[in-house]
Amino acid sequence: MQVVVPFAAGEPKTRLADVLEPAERETFARAMLADVLATVVDAGHEPTIVATEPFDPDVLESTEAVRTATSVVVDDRPLTAAVNARLPAADDAVAVVMADLALATPTALDRLVAPDADVAIAPGRGGGTNALVVRHPDFRVDYHGASYLDHRQIAREAGVTLETVDSFRLGTDVDEPADLVEVLVHGDADARAPTVLRTMGFALETTDGRVAVGRRDEPRPN
Amino acid sequence: MQVVVPFAAGEPKTRLADVLEPAERETFARAMLADVLATVVDAGHEPTIVATEPFDPDVLESTEAVRTATSVVVDDRPLTAAVNARLPAADDAVAVVMADLALATPTALDRLVAPDADVAIAPGRGGGTNALVVRHPDFRVDYHGASYLDHRQIAREAGVTLETVDSFRLGTDVDEPADLVEVLVHGDADARAPTVLRTMGFALETTDGRVAVGRRDEPRPN
Repeated sequence: MQVVVPFAAGEPKTRLADVLEPAERETFARAMLADVLATVVDAGHEPTIVATEPFDPDVLESTEAVRTATSVVVDDRPLTAAVNARLPAADDAVAVVMADLALATPTALDRLVAPDADVAIAPGRGGGTNALVVRHPDFRVDYHGASYLDHRQIAREAGVTLETVDSFRLGTDVDEPADLVEVLVHGDADARAPTVLRTMGFALETTDGRVAVGRRDEPRPN
Repeated sequence: MQVVVPFAAGEPKTRLADVLEPAERETFARAMLADVLATVVDAGHEPTIVATEPFDPDVLESTEAVRTATSVVVDDRPLTAAVNARLPAADDAVAVVMADLALATPTALDRLVAPDADVAIAPGRGGGTNALVVRHPDFRVDYHGASYLDHRQIAREAGVTLETVDSFRLGTDVDEPADLVEVLVHGDADARAPTVLRTMGFALETTDGRVAVGRRDEPRPN
């Protein structure tokens, strides 16, 4: 299946500005993108990076298999327009998976593409739409606001069936400092994003029985 | 299956103190507990409320079916000890489901009890253990800290198999103000917890494309 992976190549992950410098945010965002691409290819699909500005996928240092399967297009329109331009015109299937789903696994993606519905959505926290599969030409996305609720309404109005995929892994998009905990707890030990975080000095800390992420004052040299 | 539902009957949900008065927190915590019990019974299981202090389940105003299936025990020990006292002594199965899993559904619980493993865990955010099933007498819980990671290690050391259940619904425990969004977005329209929140004046608000929960100044009379 074609899997669209939108990627804000310009100034990614600004909500992590409190804990990561701009260059670190770029490194981390690329690491998550590399992990997502590897997961998509492992699951047997073909990813297309839809980048907001020119982007050389070689910087991701992906494996040969992932590099071969991945294509890149540049589309500087807002997310909704860039995605809608790539949704199926006929009864074809296209998936859209966000580039910051660092916890995604091939098994989780299998569950996303499994439903026999016109639209399948894995919601994120705060009413977001973290991943979806569209199999009907009458459905279009609108990522503004509580997009999960909007997408349910759009599906109802278009008369297409919609199924919700109940996944913690796909429901976790890494946007804010607290989300880094999830990358360290659930990320594969050899995946890129957790490795980058650990290299930058991040580690899990337990205080008062709750878990947070902490950083050593002096990050190790990269 | 026996399903243990620990419930802090004393002063519940203190991390919601910024948005809910003490009496409201009690009402909301009970509403979530009532929803969890109804879900457990709908899924065909028998819930036992393990309350930290004497608790009359009649205040939950559950249906006859839920009332009949539910038992209450009081155990004022810390969570870990109170749960371990109720885990299986033989090759029996016991589930533990937290009382604030307001998004839980029978389908999600079916997925929790489905794995053919000695232990199945649905992790929550921050490395927590929101729900688990134990089918082996050698496994014991430890809820302090990053309990999900600790439970994996305890299982490894005990030589028992462990499977992780990937569920957004079971992964969402309602602890903090931001979690109220999830109750309003994903809760059943006729479930108790979302109804209580709406009665208290809470509603979804979209600002800058992100969704939060807002409250009218004057709550409606209950």
